[in-house]
Amino acid sequence: MLTRIDHIGIACFDLDKTVEFYRATYGFEVFHTEVNEEQGVREAMLKINETSDGGASYLQLLEPTREDSAVGKWLAKNGEGVHHIAFGTADVDGAAGDIRSKGVRVLYDEPRIGSMGSRITFLHPKDCHGVLTELVTSADPTSAEH
Amino acid sequence: MLTRIDHIGIACFDLDKTVEFYRATYGFEVFHTEVNEEQGVREAMLKINETSDGGASYLQLLEPTREDSAVGKWLAKNGEGVHHIAFGTADVDGAAGDIRSKGVRVLYDEPRIGSMGSRITFLHPKDCHGVLTELVTSADPTSAEH
Repeated sequence: MLTRIDHIGIACFDLDKTVEFYRATYGFEVFHTEVNEEQGVREAMLKINETSDGGASYLQLLEPTREDSAVGKWLAKNGEGVHHIAFGTADVDGAAGDIRSKGVRVLYDEPRIGSMGSRITFLHPKDCHGVLTELVTSADPTSAEH
Repeated sequence: MLTRIDHIGIACFDLDKTVEFYRATYGFEVFHTEVNEEQGVREAMLKINETSDGGASYLQLLEPTREDSAVGKWLAKNGEGVHHIAFGTADVDGAAGDIRSKGVRVLYDEPRIGSMGSRITFLHPKDCHGVLTELVTSADPTSAEH
């Protein structure tokens, strides 16, 4: 059902400085950047490796675009660090329904648009041993605009 | 240099309950368990996918074996959640030396033994935008005992 670690979401105060840290320290390059106004974040995706299900694993660096966004509030409370983890699936709707039926709270009624045109939802961290957990179905690679 | 997300380390109060959560909710199975007395943890590795460098990505669930271990202290302060992230490399010694030369604090003078006979070191989270970051070189797969 869930076939890869899709990404690790890392909250930061200054996206450009954090991108530069990952480039200078490890050689990781930016694969994609975007602003997601609904989520209130400016983000950079760093592709780390490809995965056995035909996808890839990324670091997702997140800077809030407003203080009252979820990431903005989280940063004010926790400081910089790992904000969430994301598993990739071919069927985010089916996976979310299955997981909801097991009593885990799914935060959206329907998946929303995430990075690179993906469809995403989140699971409540209190139901997941403290880990804010995202489910991701990538956009059709033949239609994705990178 | 760093060629994969090797694992996400998740600290928990009760390893058996957390393993059961990941099995029941997502279908993830335990690939390996061990006790690392030096690190003061009992751990379970859940293999999520294989990676394009010939390795794999895991969730590493960690329960402290004593309150004064690093993970025990972290849990007491933060509660359950993502404790660290780990990048895989063919050469942890070279990677650690290179990263140290860039001014990032490497926590061990020499790599130590991690999960499944790997060799590991950690980078100071304050030098890594709040992320406790591990570097891992897997054991020779022909000699690894799983």
